[in-house]
Amino acid sequence: MGKLRVACFALSADGFGAGPEQSLDHPLGIGGMALHQWAFATAAFQRLHGGGSGGETGVDNDFIERGFDNVGAWILGRNMFGPVRGPWPDREWKGWWGEEPPYRVPVFVLTHHARPALAMQGGTVFHFVTDGIQAALQRARQAAGGRDVRLGGGVDTVRQYLRAGLVDELHLAIAPVLLGAGEALFAGLDLPALGYQCAERVPGERACHLLLRRLDRPA
Amino acid sequence: MGKLRVACFALSADGFGAGPEQSLDHPLGIGGMALHQWAFATAAFQRLHGGGSGGETGVDNDFIERGFDNVGAWILGRNMFGPVRGPWPDREWKGWWGEEPPYRVPVFVLTHHARPALAMQGGTVFHFVTDGIQAALQRARQAAGGRDVRLGGGVDTVRQYLRAGLVDELHLAIAPVLLGAGEALFAGLDLPALGYQCAERVPGERACHLLLRRLDRPA
Repeated sequence: MGKLRVACFALSADGFGAGPEQSLDHPLGIGGMALHQWAFATAAFQRLHGGGSGGETGVDNDFIERGFDNVGAWILGRNMFGPVRGPWPDREWKGWWGEEPPYRVPVFVLTHHARPALAMQGGTVFHFVTDGIQAALQRARQAAGGRDVRLGGGVDTVRQYLRAGLVDELHLAIAPVLLGAGEALFAGLDLPALGYQCAERVPGERACHLLLRRLDRPA
Repeated sequence: MGKLRVACFALSADGFGAGPEQSLDHPLGIGGMALHQWAFATAAFQRLHGGGSGGETGVDNDFIERGFDNVGAWILGRNMFGPVRGPWPDREWKGWWGEEPPYRVPVFVLTHHARPALAMQGGTVFHFVTDGIQAALQRARQAAGGRDVRLGGGVDTVRQYLRAGLVDELHLAIAPVLLGAGEALFAGLDLPALGYQCAERVPGERACHLLLRRLDRPA
């Protein structure tokens, strides 16, 4: 069975995974875009999001590539899918990524409000899961067919899966940025008590990469 | 006038500057020693604490050296000086560092309980300051004679000086360690609102170094 992995999860030096007041204008919260500058600079990101052929190679780029290796399905919290809250007013919102999202596999979106599956160009199909994180994981594992399931976020979704002890590996990219407010990844979460340790540290060009793993799971 | 600087302040990946339950057996709190492995490995640390001639040179070592450059006085919270709480029962406790502490300049210890100054070998003199952080800074600046004042910690002391807008530069060493509990440096502290930004990022051999500075103060 594949792993449940969080990859390329950018965190500010003061521990925030997104800025405050997420909205259509600020999908990552106010100031949150700065968390991802390390990723935007890479060749892999530029190829995956928009098909560009520029960008840098190196350690940061390798982590973006690794994040997509062997991934057979994704899970996203609803706020990662869009700024709409409450019941879907219509089916106009189709994600932040345009007609051809970078996932290219089934994506399971956690929500309290049912909606039919949505097939996009390039192989991405968004499935809307209303019966909780365990059900989403079960469906994602089935869709992944032995490959890994990647948990995209946001912060609250990652925290829910960590608390339930379901995440096998968590790759953090610590960005040299202070946000001061927003969504704190670690607040009230005792990761060692949940079985996690920092297994690897790799300095990148623009971020410091840390791999957290559960003690009881092999690399 | 010199700066008020925090240097080589080790922080876990999950944001703790010390582990929980500090005591004589666990001066850095439970698990807290792991925060400082990057420092223990350096030639500078081994020379300063115990006079050894081993240890590694490189980026981490350079930061330890820089931490002592141009420092004319130190400020420490009382818990950095020792595990004694409340009124001093006697004058037996003389710090964690033996007869010859590594400071070699005046050190101002914040406490609510008066005690005469204590001169140690090598030039370190501990002064006990009972009238607050501003008074301690004023005395330290005077003693430093134009050189920098280094604020040694602990976490609560650093937070008090940050909140008061008095710290000019804060060097963090992010260690690849999870503590899960302990003293959180950033909790409830909005550093950008207090004027700080991350001005520099330097990957070291065992830690990731970040320099935070106030926007209104030059490097």
